[in-house]
Amino acid sequence: MSSDLRSQELKNPIDVAEYLFRRLYEVGVRSIHGVPGDYNLVALDYIPKVGLHWVGNCNELNAGYAADGYARVKGISAIVTTFGVGELSTVNAIAGAYSEYVPIVHIVGYPSTASQKDGMLLHHTLGNGDFNVFSRMSSQISCAVSLLNHQHEAATLIDNAIRECWLESRPVYISLPTDIVQKKIDGDRLKTPLDLSFPPNDPDKEDYVVDVVLKYLTAAKNPVILVDACAIRHRALEETHEFIEKTGIPVFVAPMGKGAVDETLPNYGGVYAGDGSNKGVRERVESSDLVISIGAIKSDFNTAGFTYRVSQLNTIDFHSYTTRVRYSEYPGVRMNGVLKKVTQKLGKLNIQSGPTPNNKIPEQEIKSPEPTITQAWFWPRVGQFLKEGDVVITETGTANFGIWETRFPANVTAVSQVLWGSIGYATGSCQGAALAAKEKGLKRTILFTGDGSFQLTAQEVSTMIRNKLNPIIFIICNNGYTIERYIHGWQDSYNDVQEWKYKDLPAAFGAEKGSVLTYRVESKKDVDELFHNEEFASGDTQKMRFVELVMPWDDAPEALKATAEAAAKRNAS
Amino acid sequence: MSSDLRSQELKNPIDVAEYLFRRLYEVGVRSIHGVPGDYNLVALDYIPKVGLHWVGNCNELNAGYAADGYARVKGISAIVTTFGVGELSTVNAIAGAYSEYVPIVHIVGYPSTASQKDGMLLHHTLGNGDFNVFSRMSSQISCAVSLLNHQHEAATLIDNAIRECWLESRPVYISLPTDIVQKKIDGDRLKTPLDLSFPPNDPDKEDYVVDVVLKYLTAAKNPVILVDACAIRHRALEETHEFIEKTGIPVFVAPMGKGAVDETLPNYGGVYAGDGSNKGVRERVESSDLVISIGAIKSDFNTAGFTYRVSQLNTIDFHSYTTRVRYSEYPGVRMNGVLKKVTQKLGKLNIQSGPTPNNKIPEQEIKSPEPTITQAWFWPRVGQFLKEGDVVITETGTANFGIWETRFPANVTAVSQVLWGSIGYATGSCQGAALAAKEKGLKRTILFTGDGSFQLTAQEVSTMIRNKLNPIIFIICNNGYTIERYIHGWQDSYNDVQEWKYKDLPAAFGAEKGSVLTYRVESKKDVDELFHNEEFASGDTQKMRFVELVMPWDDAPEALKATAEAAAKRNAS
Repeated sequence: MSSDLRSQELKNPIDVAEYLFRRLYEVGVRSIHGVPGDYNLVALDYIPKVGLHWVGNCNELNAGYAADGYARVKGISAIVTTFGVGELSTVNAIAGAYSEYVPIVHIVGYPSTASQKDGMLLHHTLGNGDFNVFSRMSSQISCAVSLLNHQHEAATLIDNAIRECWLESRPVYISLPTDIVQKKIDGDRLKTPLDLSFPPNDPDKEDYVVDVVLKYLTAAKNPVILVDACAIRHRALEETHEFIEKTGIPVFVAPMGKGAVDETLPNYGGVYAGDGSNKGVRERVESSDLVISIGAIKSDFNTAGFTYRVSQLNTIDFHSYTTRVRYSEYPGVRMNGVLKKVTQKLGKLNIQSGPTPNNKIPEQEIKSPEPTITQAWFWPRVGQFLKEGDVVITETGTANFGIWETRFPANVTAVSQVLWGSIGYATGSCQGAALAAKEKGLKRTILFTGDGSFQLTAQEVSTMIRNKLNPIIFIICNNGYTIERYIHGWQDSYNDVQEWKYKDLPAAFGAEKGSVLTYRVESKKDVDELFHNEEFASGDTQKMRFVELVMPWDDAPEALKATAEAAAKRNAS
Repeated sequence: MSSDLRSQELKNPIDVAEYLFRRLYEVGVRSIHGVPGDYNLVALDYIPKVGLHWVGNCNELNAGYAADGYARVKGISAIVTTFGVGELSTVNAIAGAYSEYVPIVHIVGYPSTASQKDGMLLHHTLGNGDFNVFSRMSSQISCAVSLLNHQHEAATLIDNAIRECWLESRPVYISLPTDIVQKKIDGDRLKTPLDLSFPPNDPDKEDYVVDVVLKYLTAAKNPVILVDACAIRHRALEETHEFIEKTGIPVFVAPMGKGAVDETLPNYGGVYAGDGSNKGVRERVESSDLVISIGAIKSDFNTAGFTYRVSQLNTIDFHSYTTRVRYSEYPGVRMNGVLKKVTQKLGKLNIQSGPTPNNKIPEQEIKSPEPTITQAWFWPRVGQFLKEGDVVITETGTANFGIWETRFPANVTAVSQVLWGSIGYATGSCQGAALAAKEKGLKRTILFTGDGSFQLTAQEVSTMIRNKLNPIIFIICNNGYTIERYIHGWQDSYNDVQEWKYKDLPAAFGAEKGSVLTYRVESKKDVDELFHNEEFASGDTQKMRFVELVMPWDDAPEALKATAEAAAKRNAS
């Protein structure tokens, strides 16, 4: 049967591109990130048509970071790039999303299927007629690769890819050849929404695990809970919150789990990261006879250089793919169902209280006559400034270690890339996060990045201006790559960066006069005044706020120092 | 035998990193591009030690483009990135170099071999213990991958990689784990320089091919020569020049071959690109009874959409890997040796003259009372402004099509990415090209880029400032992606870009007052005045010159229009 005949038989025909974008809308995407390119142009026409917004990033790496930030706030995101040049530019961002379990649908505009079959020597190719080389590269960092080379399988491949993206919480890759964009497929299929529910655990197996967990939990003398990134990324926050609140067990977060727990709860105890832990936390966690670990990713930067001292004999691990009780493994038993039932069946528990973090400035910082803004002073001070519902993005470097010392109000979304750690990420991510926050009605998105890191992706400030976003941006001006200095090259020129006039950039990027408020703060007093300035602090202003935050080049949060030292040792070993 | 014992036996021990950088110095590299990262920091210490200069780019993609530009001017280049995050950011630039035959040595700082063996959950990894995933990705776009996991084979692997890079004229990938950097190897090996000569052709086979070529050449009534990119990239320019000058046969260049031929020669006839050819060229080439094609890459953008009308029956093809006479193939017979011998043995030839291009402004542009700077007016005008020895970089878009209409003075190096066509390339490339030009004592490097393209990689202007480079930069301000508009989306907002105040950027990037001259030209008269301004035009000034060149959004060179139309048709087919 010819494809023309088939399309005539479709009751409610719809173009492939429209089908794809309608599915994205259905799962919650409202804005599409990316950069136009000739192999994706016709597809872009469908974006406004289905009620989506085209962001129009300055480049593809930034667009990828932005899609990552958007997905962390809204649950899933999409990016459109063009074959070869565009897709490869964003590959680092996609790898980061793969590493950190962030669901991004990556749509790549491909040359027509006819050109591919003929192996034509087209622009944006390696000139060798191989049109699969880039999808092979991306297959290393995607949980599904769907090549839409035939219209008849397009809907199935699209549905599978989006479902995998959601369930695995990782990027997927969809090729969209130029001649497939407008091919007709069955539109009635859209009447059945995608099934995004996790396959339930085997009930017998789950009940068995629940009993085992309850046995150890009830027997424990001083249990603690430790929440990490995968509780967020694998969509187990609801079950986690219920468990925390109902048990009242002291709860701690790993750095990558910052924001997963309501830090205003009486049983919230702070950040645990081995030697980099908040005050009193290490002692409390490591003396516990049962650590209930939810969604752990024990990477070097998440554990201050592998400095956990928690025995597996005292640990219950909840994951998306397994449950582990001491050394007993229960593969395939996902945390969500188990946590829910454990909470329902709770008996009497032994609770010993833990430390209570706050945002008090350390004594020695208060006593210090120095006006300089130190890392030790700044991060608790930020905690006093934050408000419920804020979205806070911290760059790899002093910021994402410093934020360990900030106690959040309720419902703060924290965004940072502790495992992948690609500098430049935060500024791109801020664009996507701010847009997602706006769509969700959240008022403030706050970025903390370093001067060295900012330079990698600075132009995304232009995209924020273009999209009328109003984040609060702090550029930590400390003359270069401070985190690197702590690892190696303390005063070597390769860790310096060109000194920019950061404040002048929004205007150069075309911000209208008065639409961006700019500041430079060089002392603790300046910061205090800034934080008390209502025009600056308000979530209601429509203006971007852009701050040069001057800090000493040789100062870093304690947790960074410990982690960097461990990294330097490991590098030399 | 332990490695300590072995290193004691070395007569002239040298650290692996020093060996690597000394080899790079030996083959002509004087500056290393890249971005620091904790897995490469210790290696960076060796760069100044061996007399190399560290550029310190703003990000890795830009560094890759810069390395590409540097290699096109100096013959080879090197870039240092860090594991995962850094290397993936530059992968698009490396793919471009692979596609267009540009030799770049890509050195990636790796975690220590011990960490790799243990599969540690380190930052910059996918968290799955697989340390080979990124080298697998890069193997798709590298002609050699050398993983330096054992000191005993390090020197061999380094030598092989650099030799392959040079001979294949394509990128190579070298991993340098942190613990290998300072391992001792045999330094005496450096006393034997790398052998970078091409393996000679089989003499009998070569002589046979030479005779066949001479037979057809002598018999031809009106032969022409067509020079393309691979004559440059595969280092056959000397033989090509000699052949052109001694035969006196009319010679044309493909767009990617621009700059390969001395355009002041009396037998230079202009650009041949099928329907996009210079005036009179298509007729002359396509009526020839013998086209001697040297280093052809017949891609869509290099042929104005596959519009060559040259029969293989009338063609002799010279390549780096084969010679083809009509339909007779001579695999393995490299062009250099054959061209040299053919030139030596030339008999009497039939020569019919061809067109002679010039930089005269087209009649209708002279007559037009419109002050607007049109593409048709501008590019010949640029030809009048260029000087011998200039390095000219044109971005994919109106610039790299427009330059077809510019006749060069002698010894102009033209840099553009016609096959790979990644927008943003030109600005990054300009940094590397300008640095290479400075090292070679060339005075002027001139960049033509579009506003949309510039936004992808704008921060590399900061790197130029930091490195005290003084290129002349033209930003074509025409409100977005004009090349895309000609393909699809004529007035769609996705082809618009945020309007920047481009001229304000160098100051925001920290240029000292007076160190950058900025201009805005909006009329033909403005351009004329600018080109006559000695401070602007001089190659001796130490100042960067930065020009906003205002052109209509809907104007494009004729060759672009034809090529875009063909691309749009192919996309829909």
